[in-house]
Amino acid sequence: MSGTIMTDQMQHVALTTYCEGAPKLSDFAVETKDAPTPNEGQFRVRHVFNSVDPGTRSRLSGGDSYAAALPLGKPIDGFSVGVVDMSENPEYPVGTKVFCAGGWRTHTIQTGKGFIDKVPEIPGIPLSLWIGVLGVPGLTAWFGLKTVAKFKAGDRVLVTSAAGPVGATAGQLAKASGAEQVIGIAGSDTKCKWLVEEAGFDHAINYKTTPDLDAAIREAMPKGVDVLFDNVGNAMINRVMPMMRLNGRICVSGQVADYNLTPEETPGIVNTKPFITHRINMQGLVVFDFAREFPIALNEMATLIGKGELKLKEERFEGIDKMPEAFCGLFRGENFGRRVVKVGDE
Amino acid sequence: MSGTIMTDQMQHVALTTYCEGAPKLSDFAVETKDAPTPNEGQFRVRHVFNSVDPGTRSRLSGGDSYAAALPLGKPIDGFSVGVVDMSENPEYPVGTKVFCAGGWRTHTIQTGKGFIDKVPEIPGIPLSLWIGVLGVPGLTAWFGLKTVAKFKAGDRVLVTSAAGPVGATAGQLAKASGAEQVIGIAGSDTKCKWLVEEAGFDHAINYKTTPDLDAAIREAMPKGVDVLFDNVGNAMINRVMPMMRLNGRICVSGQVADYNLTPEETPGIVNTKPFITHRINMQGLVVFDFAREFPIALNEMATLIGKGELKLKEERFEGIDKMPEAFCGLFRGENFGRRVVKVGDE
Repeated sequence: MSGTIMTDQMQHVALTTYCEGAPKLSDFAVETKDAPTPNEGQFRVRHVFNSVDPGTRSRLSGGDSYAAALPLGKPIDGFSVGVVDMSENPEYPVGTKVFCAGGWRTHTIQTGKGFIDKVPEIPGIPLSLWIGVLGVPGLTAWFGLKTVAKFKAGDRVLVTSAAGPVGATAGQLAKASGAEQVIGIAGSDTKCKWLVEEAGFDHAINYKTTPDLDAAIREAMPKGVDVLFDNVGNAMINRVMPMMRLNGRICVSGQVADYNLTPEETPGIVNTKPFITHRINMQGLVVFDFAREFPIALNEMATLIGKGELKLKEERFEGIDKMPEAFCGLFRGENFGRRVVKVGDE
Repeated sequence: MSGTIMTDQMQHVALTTYCEGAPKLSDFAVETKDAPTPNEGQFRVRHVFNSVDPGTRSRLSGGDSYAAALPLGKPIDGFSVGVVDMSENPEYPVGTKVFCAGGWRTHTIQTGKGFIDKVPEIPGIPLSLWIGVLGVPGLTAWFGLKTVAKFKAGDRVLVTSAAGPVGATAGQLAKASGAEQVIGIAGSDTKCKWLVEEAGFDHAINYKTTPDLDAAIREAMPKGVDVLFDNVGNAMINRVMPMMRLNGRICVSGQVADYNLTPEETPGIVNTKPFITHRINMQGLVVFDFAREFPIALNEMATLIGKGELKLKEERFEGIDKMPEAFCGLFRGENFGRRVVKVGDE
């Protein structure tokens, strides 16, 4: 029963300690073990790229009333694109390229159910885009802007964390869909320059070097904000609320500034009068609710990519052992574009 | 030109001092002057009942970025029902009963434009209801529940300030429309008793005597809240947010606890994680946005009143000089139902 069959090895990154405040490298450990093999109906995906996602943070605190805790010792959740290397499922033969809810690991066993699909054959689309602008971040931007924030041509759009993969996509989609004005807030001059010169934002504001951010937003958007596409959290929403226009909409896309805070540390949204006076609508989203409509969004975004109207900055890390570093940096604002980690050959 | 024609006298209540904190009697003065007479196309309404409305408070602080200040010395805004007593407008002959944006006065000149309409001839509906359950409070409840909060049969509904005219109407409309459960929060045992025994709420909680309000809400609504119909403000929304169910909706109908507070004093909404985890939608309303659909709502509510399924508690004050007293009491939670002030004969 033991030791007679040589098995593949795989690696994964496990949570070793529940995070307090910002996640740190010592909260994680890379572990090596025998790679699993598929049973009937299953297949094995050899991951090529894994994502690190700020939203993952909410499951790393030991659980609260909003998010179940990830069990200690288990691999971290995330998205992956890879190649089927063993299969007992005729729908997914060996060699099939897929994107899926894979996680921080080099191999997963999949059944074809849940969040998994074959990578469509579109020439000129790099594989990593399927966990980027054509993956969860891009889909979050698309459904957050169009379905949740009910974007319409002529809207004035303010995007926060704008150089991140969700924000950059949301701003470009707004621009491509007839926004009157798209302004981004980001954390470095390099990011701001890229937003304006490459991504086509009308203007970008470096929140780290702007002494009076309120005044800078008001100056850039003197007529106010129709859509706030927010990836930051309560303090940012509180700041922008008084600048919202009549019938303005706030998409709560992410809360990266709040994920590391205890309830006592978390800022509150005080400026709520505009909910009535300006009929503000505020809503959050989890993109998987819109799974049935993913093909519509992916088709539109792939077309925009082909026309050069949707660009994504990518930061690539090499090796699964770099995943904790790539993740922890998200909370220091170090990321510029989508962070993907290459964990296997294409 | 002067002094040869005897004119009627009228009275109004003017703001004499901008309010700081809770409004007080000395902020107001009753003034007597010659009643105006209509020019061509105009008509004069002799008010019978005037309303006092908590939302008026936002214009009595000298103005901020959300609400223009009411000029000192001018009559206060409000709603009125009355009878045309002079007319140069054939659409509104003398004797026509109307409800309108009249204000804290005994007579107004109207043109037939803006918020004014003839009182429909429905037997058995007292005149004062047209500034109550069939006026702005009732319409706010109807559109807040059905259009803003997208109420659907089977929802579990929590109503705050539930014995007020908006809350009591919202709860009864929810019950009449197939709510699974309707719970009210109010400020006295008498109000709670009325909510359950007369208005048909499933349960009511006295927030003033309940030591642990969170626990009491959770016990009354163990499955959570689909619709929070809130008339109170940020602290209440923050409290209920962790109890919201998936795809829950919050109608920001009023903010009576926050109107008297400075920005520094105002509590914030900290518990915003459910916006994402539970896909919460939060929206405020100003009922006049729905003016085109008022007839649909009024017809439905008049039918419910006829069937005894929509009851409204009314507190009546006599004489225009009682308007400041009626208004100031709103902010001490003294009101139980709709406060109307009788300022003229029917």
